[in-house]
Amino acid sequence: MDVVVQKYGGSSVSCTDKIKSIAKNIIQRKKQNSKIVVVVSAMGDTTDDYIKLANGITEKPSKRELDVLMSTGEMISASLLAMALNSLGCDSISYSAYQLQISASGSHGKSQIDDIDVSKIEKSLEEGKVVIVTGFQGVNDKGDITTLGRGGSDTSAVALAVKLNGKCEIYTDVDGIYSTDPRKYKDAKKLQEIEYEEMLELASSGAQVMHSRSIELAQKHGIEIYVGLSCGKEKGTYIRGGKEMKLEGKVITGLATSDEDTSITIKDFNSNNIASLFEDIANKGISVDMISQTAPVDEKISVSFTIPKEELNECKSIVSSYASDEEVVIDNNITKFSLVGLGMKNTHGVASKVFKIFNENNIGIKLITTSEIRITCAIDSKDKQIAINKIARGFDL
Amino acid sequence: MDVVVQKYGGSSVSCTDKIKSIAKNIIQRKKQNSKIVVVVSAMGDTTDDYIKLANGITEKPSKRELDVLMSTGEMISASLLAMALNSLGCDSISYSAYQLQISASGSHGKSQIDDIDVSKIEKSLEEGKVVIVTGFQGVNDKGDITTLGRGGSDTSAVALAVKLNGKCEIYTDVDGIYSTDPRKYKDAKKLQEIEYEEMLELASSGAQVMHSRSIELAQKHGIEIYVGLSCGKEKGTYIRGGKEMKLEGKVITGLATSDEDTSITIKDFNSNNIASLFEDIANKGISVDMISQTAPVDEKISVSFTIPKEELNECKSIVSSYASDEEVVIDNNITKFSLVGLGMKNTHGVASKVFKIFNENNIGIKLITTSEIRITCAIDSKDKQIAINKIARGFDL
Repeated sequence: MDVVVQKYGGSSVSCTDKIKSIAKNIIQRKKQNSKIVVVVSAMGDTTDDYIKLANGITEKPSKRELDVLMSTGEMISASLLAMALNSLGCDSISYSAYQLQISASGSHGKSQIDDIDVSKIEKSLEEGKVVIVTGFQGVNDKGDITTLGRGGSDTSAVALAVKLNGKCEIYTDVDGIYSTDPRKYKDAKKLQEIEYEEMLELASSGAQVMHSRSIELAQKHGIEIYVGLSCGKEKGTYIRGGKEMKLEGKVITGLATSDEDTSITIKDFNSNNIASLFEDIANKGISVDMISQTAPVDEKISVSFTIPKEELNECKSIVSSYASDEEVVIDNNITKFSLVGLGMKNTHGVASKVFKIFNENNIGIKLITTSEIRITCAIDSKDKQIAINKIARGFDL
Repeated sequence: MDVVVQKYGGSSVSCTDKIKSIAKNIIQRKKQNSKIVVVVSAMGDTTDDYIKLANGITEKPSKRELDVLMSTGEMISASLLAMALNSLGCDSISYSAYQLQISASGSHGKSQIDDIDVSKIEKSLEEGKVVIVTGFQGVNDKGDITTLGRGGSDTSAVALAVKLNGKCEIYTDVDGIYSTDPRKYKDAKKLQEIEYEEMLELASSGAQVMHSRSIELAQKHGIEIYVGLSCGKEKGTYIRGGKEMKLEGKVITGLATSDEDTSITIKDFNSNNIASLFEDIANKGISVDMISQTAPVDEKISVSFTIPKEELNECKSIVSSYASDEEVVIDNNITKFSLVGLGMKNTHGVASKVFKIFNENNIGIKLITTSEIRITCAIDSKDKQIAINKIARGFDL
């Protein structure tokens, strides 16, 4: 019998009625001769509510205790879903990170799963039970509860699928992966399938459907992920490896945008200091995304880079020890605009086509970075919508 | 340095402001050269809210999962209190039942604590930290979370005081133990001290200040318990052993009433069946409190007993296999009225004084049971208030 690991996001378990309806889905799925493990997120807005509660105590809650608080959200939804299944005559049992010894490392709020002891799960599955597991959490080497960061339940689900050698199904409030966000471009096309690497680039470029670490993990272990609506018959999207994909795909699979970053430009910068500057920034745990610099003239360069908006103040204080205020330009109105496609590897002219479309529409490019399968431009936020429309049409997304 | 185990009830941690104010109290108490362990209940009405939530899923939620749900309430308040202490510069750490391996046995929702591994607590106390422990919960031999029943946090606190050889302070929304409920008798007197056995009889007779199992545990290990308001300077009540009490106490210490029970009377009952009847009732986990029977005539007796109101339906179906409907009388309008005092042991005439007062006021007695230090009468609920007034005055409570 196949093991299927299903994950239901917060919006799918936001109230008792939705939990009861999910329970019925699970029972249907179980009848297809499968052993079912379900990973749940916290109900609806619980995470935000908890952050508000903690902020009622202090602006800077201790991270260990914040993780204790956060982890209760999944315990609540897991117990309720198990109750719902039991009440419908389907034997079910919930397990928390403590009970499964989901070992995790790394700092509180952004830990990574090291291992899961699935012996309890396997025993319960053998007994015919549906097993509910609290997503988003693990236990560190001090025996403290720790969380995996926003969207971490996706990673919990994939990790369980890896350990149980099963399939993974992610149920959410969108009916699949789109070439670009349908809320921003109404003609966006739903993809039948997408390759791990493409999904990874999209996820890290701002597409919020999946936790990017979950895709990495699935790719590493060759776990196929299905993403779709929890209720409804419309087919969703499969995230899978190259071999299982159609032989010839499109050049560009998807488009993602992100308004989360800000750019910093330093003019007349001594090029000998550049390593030291980025080392200082990295030491503060600030992740720099795009970097570009001009060729040096008399050892002076102009360097631009982007960082998450919330890190701006800390980053500014580092920069101020290298450059005077007059030499530093902050730009808060940027949108990172990324095109992703495995086809880029073998197709020339994607970049030039992008530049041509931008040029025709008077969209200025502020920064560019590329990977083998991705091209990202920072553009002015006011140009975002027209850029989405023109590029999506130009590349038939 | 003394170890002090403080317990704060749900009303003391009902909102973030109250949690912050408790944190300040704890810091003050710590300055009196003490190591502090704090047991918290769930915030305010959390328990009731959770029961509503579970009932939104099903009328009969599985007890294992209900305990998972319930146990999150204390995790939330524990983490928030630790955050509050940390934010005030007082190092603090929260521990759950899993982390401390609070081992418990017995059925879900009414488990008993078997042992607590206090090594983590002792280590944290040595490091100067205030340790916050989730009350009301333990882990059973299957590794499942289980709860101790309403008021179980009192027992958690006393159990920790036993294991840590410390003092126990119970902070609540009343300022001490009263001779009778001040909401029912406005002249009720606050007691400076009360003996374990008296408190135990009062608690099991309906006084809801303390979880009765916590008193048993304290008595067994000679742990002194202080009960008082969390904020405010007024002195509360000490619950302690006979040796530390004043030499001569009052005959009657307190009065408690309970409306939680219903009485069942079976007429013309075959006396040979009585053991079997009560065995059947016990096997269903129904606790019978008061029992009285008439002397047999031709092996026929009349037997009356009280059970908790919520068990009535189940109990009726047992009784129906022993007696026809015409032979069974149910009385839902009874109040158990109990007088408690160690002095009863050596003083005659308490019962007759009670009967005299009842008689003078036309209060009929339906059932009577007594222990060495307690006399309990079931009376009609409509007579409750006058009985309280007359008896409290008669015995100067």
